[in-house]
Amino acid sequence: MEDRTRQEQASPEVRARVRADFERQGLMRHLGARLTHIGPGSAHIVLPGRPEVTQQHGYFHAGATSAVADSAGGCAALTLFPEGTSVLSVEYKINLLAPAVGDHVEAVGTVLRAGRTLTVCRLEVFAVRDGERSLVVSGQQTLIRVGERPGR
Amino acid sequence: MEDRTRQEQASPEVRARVRADFERQGLMRHLGARLTHIGPGSAHIVLPGRPEVTQQHGYFHAGATSAVADSAGGCAALTLFPEGTSVLSVEYKINLLAPAVGDHVEAVGTVLRAGRTLTVCRLEVFAVRDGERSLVVSGQQTLIRVGERPGR
Amino acid sequence: MEDRTRQEQASPEVRARVRADFERQGLMRHLGARLTHIGPGSAHIVLPGRPEVTQQHGYFHAGATSAVADSAGGCAALTLFPEGTSVLSVEYKINLLAPAVGDHVEAVGTVLRAGRTLTVCRLEVFAVRDGERSLVVSGQQTLIRVGERPGR
Amino acid sequence: MEDRTRQEQASPEVRARVRADFERQGLMRHLGARLTHIGPGSAHIVLPGRPEVTQQHGYFHAGATSAVADSAGGCAALTLFPEGTSVLSVEYKINLLAPAVGDHVEAVGTVLRAGRTLTVCRLEVFAVRDGERSLVVSGQQTLIRVGERPGR
Repeated sequence: MEDRTRQEQASPEVRARVRADFERQGLMRHLGARLTHIGPGSAHIVLPGRPEVTQQHGYFHAGATSAVADSAGGCAALTLFPEGTSVLSVEYKINLLAPAVGDHVEAVGTVLRAGRTLTVCRLEVFAVRDGERSLVVSGQQTLIRVGERPGR
Repeated sequence: MEDRTRQEQASPEVRARVRADFERQGLMRHLGARLTHIGPGSAHIVLPGRPEVTQQHGYFHAGATSAVADSAGGCAALTLFPEGTSVLSVEYKINLLAPAVGDHVEAVGTVLRAGRTLTVCRLEVFAVRDGERSLVVSGQQTLIRVGERPGR
Repeated sequence: MEDRTRQEQASPEVRARVRADFERQGLMRHLGARLTHIGPGSAHIVLPGRPEVTQQHGYFHAGATSAVADSAGGCAALTLFPEGTSVLSVEYKINLLAPAVGDHVEAVGTVLRAGRTLTVCRLEVFAVRDGERSLVVSGQQTLIRVGERPGR
Repeated sequence: MEDRTRQEQASPEVRARVRADFERQGLMRHLGARLTHIGPGSAHIVLPGRPEVTQQHGYFHAGATSAVADSAGGCAALTLFPEGTSVLSVEYKINLLAPAVGDHVEAVGTVLRAGRTLTVCRLEVFAVRDGERSLVVSGQQTLIRVGERPGR
C-alpha cells in the first residue's frame, strides 16, 4: 500500500528509538503488525488480515484494530519525547465506523496536543482492500510521559 | 482463580450459543483467551500472561486487555438477544487504571442497559497475581444488534 | 469572528429545519449560544464568555464547552437526515486539551460517518482570544436517528 | 429526594473546601445545580428540571446532564486531595442510556482510582420522576491534580 502523500520522516535517532520500543511489544509481533512510518508526531502500523485477528463474522476484531491503533498513538507520542523517557496509555476511545474487511489495515496515530505530562493523539484505522482505502476506526487517546522505569 | 461470588449461569441454550460465537473469534484463540463464565447479561474471559500479549515494559498490552474486554461485553450482550441475532461493537472507551501485571487478567462484561437497537456494557479487567485481584481497566461499550448476516 | 475559510452552506430548507431544532433547545438559549454556520454535514455554534459559563478557575466550564460541542454534532448530523426525522445523542467523549479561555468559544461538529441508524461526528471546540484561535476540546460523538417522536 | 442509603460524609474541613470550589463554578449556579452530598471520594449534584436545561424534545440536554456529571466527578476527586491543590478535567466519556425526563436529575461522581497525578471517576446520572429513580447517564472521567494556580 502506498501512502496517499509523501510523509515527512522523523530523524534517524528518533526512528531508531521508536522502532526499538515497538519491537519490545510482544503483542505486536504476535499479531504480525509492522511499524511502517515514523514521522514527527505520527506513526503508522500495518496489520495484515488473517484468521488469527478476526472476530466472529470474519472481520478484523475490534481488539486487533484497537491494539494497533493504541500502539500507533504511543509511537507517535514517543517521537516527541526526549531520550530516556517512555509513555503509557492512560485511556482511549474508539468508534468502529464500519466492519473492517481487507487485505490489511493501517493504523495512524497523530499527536493532537503534546503537554509536559499528558499527550493526546488522534487514532485512525483504514482498511485496504484491492487498493481501496476506507476509514473504519476513529478514536482518541491520552498518554502519560514516564521515566524509563514507569510506575504512575 | 475463583470467582469472588458464586455467579448465576445463563441457560444451557444461551451458553451454547454464546460459546459458539466466542469460538468463531480467531483473535481470542490466537491470544489464548478462554470464556470462563456466561451469566444473564454478563460474561468473563480469562487471558493468561505470556510474552505474546505484552507491551514494551512487559505489562499486558492495552490492546490485549481491551480485546478481551471488548469480547466480554459482546458475549454479555449476546446472552440477552434472541437466537438468530448477532452483535457488533459500535464504540468503546477504556481507562487503564494501573499497569496490568500478573499471572492472568480476567475481563468482565456486564450489560448496563439493553435496548431494542443498542446495548451498553460496563467493561472491567482485573489482574490476578499470586491470588490477589486488582482492577486495572474500567470502560464502557456500545453495541448494536444485527441479524446473522450483519451490515450496519 | 471570521471563519478561517469560506464555508459551504447547506440548502435553505435544511438550514431552516436545523435552526428550528436548535431554537427548541432551552439550554442553548440559556447559555447564550448562537448557531453560526450550517453546512452539509457540519455545524458551528458560538458561545460567548461570561461568568455564567465558567468553572472554578474562571475558564469555560467543561460542561459548557461540551454542551455546545454536543449540540454542534447533533445539528451536523441533522443536516444529512430527511425531513420528519430527528436525532438523539447516544454517547460522546471529549478531551480537554487546554484550559478554555477567551472572548468566546466556537464548537464545530463534523459528520465522520452517516449510517442508516447511527451517525458519528467529530467534535472540536476552539477558544478565540484577541483574534487568536486555538483548539481546546477534541472529541467524538455517536448519534441515533429517530422519528419526530423519539423513544429508543 | 432521599438518598437510597445513608451516605458517609466527608470531614467538615473537606466539605467546606469542596463546597467553596463548587460555588466558584458560575455554570453550576446558572443552571440551578446544588451540591447535595460530599463523601470521601464521592459527590452528588442535583439539577432541577426546567426549560432552561432542555434539548429539542424537552428532555434534559446531554450538555446539562454531562455538566453536572463532570462537576460531580471533580468534587469527588477533590475530596481526596490535600488543601491547596485543585483539579482539572482531562477528558470524559458518557453514554446517554435513556432520555432524561423528570422533576430533577442527580449526578453521582465516584472515584475509581486516585493516583499521584491522575484520578479516574465513574459518572452516573439518575433521573427522578414521581419518586422513581432511573439511571440515564453512565460515564467515566479522568482528572489531573494541579496547584491552586493551574496550568497543565
